[in-house]
Amino acid sequence: MYGFNNRVLRINLTINDIKVEELDEKVYREHLGGRGLALYFLLRELKPQTDPLGPENKLIFAIGVTTGIPLAGFSRYSVVAKSPLTNGFGEAEAGGFWGPELKFAGFDIIIVEGASSKPVYLWVHDNDAEIRDASHIWGKTTKEAQEAIRKDVGDPLVRVASIGHAGENLVRFACILNELKFANGRSGLGAVMGSKNLKAIAVRGHKRVECKDPEKIKGLAKWFGQNWRKHPPALSRNTYGTAGAVLPMNADGILPTRNFREGTFEEVERISGEEMKNTIVINSEGCFACPIRCKRTVKGLEPYATDPSYGGPEYETIAAFGSLCAVNDISAVALANQLCNAYGLDTISTGCVIAFAMDCYENEVLTKDETDGLELRFGNTNAMVKLVEMIAKREGLGDILAEGVKRASEKIGKGAERYALHVKGKEIPMHEPRGKTGLALQYALSPSGADHLQSAHDPSFENSIEEIKPLGILETVNRLSLGPEKVRLFKYLHLWWSLLDCVCACKFVFVPHPVGVFKINHLVEIVNAVTGWDTSLLELMMTAERSLNLARIFNLREGFTKADDWLPERFFEPLRSGPKEGAKISKDDLKKAIELFYEMMKWDGKTGTPKSAKLHELGLLQ
Amino acid sequence: MYGFNNRVLRINLTINDIKVEELDEKVYREHLGGRGLALYFLLRELKPQTDPLGPENKLIFAIGVTTGIPLAGFSRYSVVAKSPLTNGFGEAEAGGFWGPELKFAGFDIIIVEGASSKPVYLWVHDNDAEIRDASHIWGKTTKEAQEAIRKDVGDPLVRVASIGHAGENLVRFACILNELKFANGRSGLGAVMGSKNLKAIAVRGHKRVECKDPEKIKGLAKWFGQNWRKHPPALSRNTYGTAGAVLPMNADGILPTRNFREGTFEEVERISGEEMKNTIVINSEGCFACPIRCKRTVKGLEPYATDPSYGGPEYETIAAFGSLCAVNDISAVALANQLCNAYGLDTISTGCVIAFAMDCYENEVLTKDETDGLELRFGNTNAMVKLVEMIAKREGLGDILAEGVKRASEKIGKGAERYALHVKGKEIPMHEPRGKTGLALQYALSPSGADHLQSAHDPSFENSIEEIKPLGILETVNRLSLGPEKVRLFKYLHLWWSLLDCVCACKFVFVPHPVGVFKINHLVEIVNAVTGWDTSLLELMMTAERSLNLARIFNLREGFTKADDWLPERFFEPLRSGPKEGAKISKDDLKKAIELFYEMMKWDGKTGTPKSAKLHELGLLQ
Repeated sequence: MYGFNNRVLRINLTINDIKVEELDEKVYREHLGGRGLALYFLLRELKPQTDPLGPENKLIFAIGVTTGIPLAGFSRYSVVAKSPLTNGFGEAEAGGFWGPELKFAGFDIIIVEGASSKPVYLWVHDNDAEIRDASHIWGKTTKEAQEAIRKDVGDPLVRVASIGHAGENLVRFACILNELKFANGRSGLGAVMGSKNLKAIAVRGHKRVECKDPEKIKGLAKWFGQNWRKHPPALSRNTYGTAGAVLPMNADGILPTRNFREGTFEEVERISGEEMKNTIVINSEGCFACPIRCKRTVKGLEPYATDPSYGGPEYETIAAFGSLCAVNDISAVALANQLCNAYGLDTISTGCVIAFAMDCYENEVLTKDETDGLELRFGNTNAMVKLVEMIAKREGLGDILAEGVKRASEKIGKGAERYALHVKGKEIPMHEPRGKTGLALQYALSPSGADHLQSAHDPSFENSIEEIKPLGILETVNRLSLGPEKVRLFKYLHLWWSLLDCVCACKFVFVPHPVGVFKINHLVEIVNAVTGWDTSLLELMMTAERSLNLARIFNLREGFTKADDWLPERFFEPLRSGPKEGAKISKDDLKKAIELFYEMMKWDGKTGTPKSAKLHELGLLQ
Repeated sequence: MYGFNNRVLRINLTINDIKVEELDEKVYREHLGGRGLALYFLLRELKPQTDPLGPENKLIFAIGVTTGIPLAGFSRYSVVAKSPLTNGFGEAEAGGFWGPELKFAGFDIIIVEGASSKPVYLWVHDNDAEIRDASHIWGKTTKEAQEAIRKDVGDPLVRVASIGHAGENLVRFACILNELKFANGRSGLGAVMGSKNLKAIAVRGHKRVECKDPEKIKGLAKWFGQNWRKHPPALSRNTYGTAGAVLPMNADGILPTRNFREGTFEEVERISGEEMKNTIVINSEGCFACPIRCKRTVKGLEPYATDPSYGGPEYETIAAFGSLCAVNDISAVALANQLCNAYGLDTISTGCVIAFAMDCYENEVLTKDETDGLELRFGNTNAMVKLVEMIAKREGLGDILAEGVKRASEKIGKGAERYALHVKGKEIPMHEPRGKTGLALQYALSPSGADHLQSAHDPSFENSIEEIKPLGILETVNRLSLGPEKVRLFKYLHLWWSLLDCVCACKFVFVPHPVGVFKINHLVEIVNAVTGWDTSLLELMMTAERSLNLARIFNLREGFTKADDWLPERFFEPLRSGPKEGAKISKDDLKKAIELFYEMMKWDGKTGTPKSAKLHELGLLQ
């Protein structure tokens, strides 16, 4: 079989067992990897109502059929488990080098079961795996852990995915970092790893991906190298990183500000990508085989000096610690980012819980007695930075916030729920649904809770109608509509982006993202060149649909209902400032749109349950 | 725009009006041509409950986006109208040269409206069209009409599609023939043409199809030329024509015999493709740009001498006039075929009504008094040939049979319905559903009534599982199953074959037909090379789905219900002989399968009505 190693690594930490399993090629072809393949295992192996932080939960690392080919965008991998944040399907993807390295090491999937009685790490190398003691790195930062592991195994090129204090302390939005800066950020999977006493997975391999048609891949790599600069958004990412989006989003009135009260930030110039480039950026970095190099390396200025090893803040991070908290210091944002990467915290959820606490404080739901003396007003830079540390270490208010806004607001009471913005328990990313309604559908309907990478963003779609025609959408759709034509657009783009999560491809290199260089049909060519299959966009999209149905079934089994596919109240209230001032989501429109989406997915309109005809159609039910 | 001329020719025969209209490229892309584009017009322009033989019916000739490119399989066109046989969606496709010629003449679609007060023919040539007097050819055979028209316009290369006596006499299964042998056979569209006093449409053009990437098309033509001989079924078609199927079908126990009582014919050797080749075949012919040349030219032997101009019988024709009527003389079959082509009768329906009459006669439902003295037993060769002529001219019993088995059995009464095998009023083609259950679904669910070209036939599918994987089907399905896996297979193959009817491609050159040379993904390449679009199999299959939904809506509007999606009783009874003796369709299985198909199509499970979510999803409803 091309593309995959056909080796599944199954580790049971309770009994120190290591197994290698094979799969039928049909299973690989039906699920492709990443989200899809992980769900295949998760749904059949996890008992309903499993405690996400108990040993019965399983943590699955999965790469895709195309991961590790020498082509921009194929560096990624998914981590999947039952989420301690949502209590449902939890997933997070990351780029970097770890995913390709796992494939080079001879495996496609790692399934971690049970829990170790003492801290361990996993050392996976060239078709082999060992469970190793991690006592010496427990309680250490990701950087300390990485350095120690590289020293242990005597290889400085080992790729290490590890948790920090947050994962160890079961912070419900703890993440997993590889190379200190590429994060499987969302869903609290770092806490699942911590609950298993698993500090890190280190991988090293010397195989390369065997492709059916390597010349085709080489040709596409050459084409990409020659063409990506022709795409202005790709050039912008190369110049400013994702931070280049800060000013345009603000100008558009959709830069989340002060816990989503507003869509513009009056001091945006001080946290922009341009400001960052002019002050603290010292280098750029990228993922395996990608020339765009959209990651920044920064060196923050005193009093917020930072260590360049931890990379620099992305757009999401800048908005979460910047405008969302009304913080105007890019170095402070960089430091918060560093702390998140060192302690293993998701920057989006962390920024959100802090903004939530500030909102509570300003509305007198939290008092100074309850904030460990912090004057938690929007714009309090020191408090923002301090809270990151307190959350990771579960100190004082940080211990409450470490539960995420949903649980924290329930603990705080006094109407704090009003300021807790989340979907299914997951905090909201830095995209304002009132200014691009596709996000409203995406947040409400993403199987892992509020997520901004489950469908294209409306403005970028408006610029790329030609490029989504292979999906059968031939006309642009108003970005503020929630009508049937938007639901249709959303459905196909949701499937398309889910497909990218199954093959584990980067959403920045593919259309209809504004950085899209590869077109939709390139993916079909690439999968065929790798595997030797004669697949089609039709078949690949069915794979994506399988993953969405399996995720849906998983969530229903865990007790989710239609009521969980909804938005926080704030988005039904008007935006308070900027070009989109007054914009709000109509509850009635949203309800109709969600029900229409269910129908389009062949899910029951009242409960969202996949109909058996759909499962038969996808070959999921015999 | 590439591929199409963007010229719709609209002819109103009542007021002698000729118009040329343009379409938005989006309409072309959403419907592609043929069945799809014709339905786009038919559904929006035809009033519900229109009399199919009245002037309000519209007769639409449509070619597809790829028609006329210099590549095997792209010679075809569809004729569509409300059918006088089914009273619902009526369509028939034909190959040959007429379709390409229409494109070369500068048009994509001809919509014929109204009815002329006197016989006319239409002369379409190089971006121009004229309505001409046809008094001199009314009452003439297709050959006489063709010769007269060629003489009239002074061009021996004019392609003529015309009706014969049957169409003039409103025989409900009258067909339209081009070049005397390529038939738009089914649905009685020749009668619609006759009802409009339109004898023929003659076309001639000197343009060629403008393709975005002509080199690609040339390359594929070369590839096809080099590869088609490697496919044994294609070679067989080249050697024996479709008649090569007679012996294998008989050996398999699925050769319709004696009005579907049996699946084997004891004298099959005398009507086989081999027998035909050894006795009466004098040449082979083919369609535009196709090297396979699967059509035969025959010269029947006395007392059934034939004129080679009318071609030779296909598999369907041989079975319909041969085994179905228990006739064992290949020359007699060839003569029946010639009469059908001269008088413009569908050979399948004609054979079926004769077998029906024989079955009635043998069961004493018809007596010699009612058969004009014919001893209408199975195997009476002379009576079979005689009846063809009587039907075309509506003489004696022929006048009753000219109404089709459904209406004829109602007129005859006395339980004749038991011998009248049809779905939606259309007679059953020469494929035994009890031996390949995909046919049961195809017959029951085809929007134009019993049709054998709406989905692949199970045995051929079994041989080509690799080739249908682009449709997402990765495993073979038992040919006798009616379970969910068969419904899924049927759904995707039904869509795929409907797609071929939208682009107007030949079902013999594409997989999963056993003659398939082009693979499924070739079609995507070909459409892209012609149009310059960046389409996908996903988008193309949506087009097919649009056509099936529009056809469904058309039929529902005309009063069809779920009860019309069903099979004649005989198929629920055991086959009486041969290797499949005892095989029967289970009513319960069929009902479940049909309801599951509805659900898979997002049609209401109880009524078969397309749900609005499906129409929104396809962009058919805003």
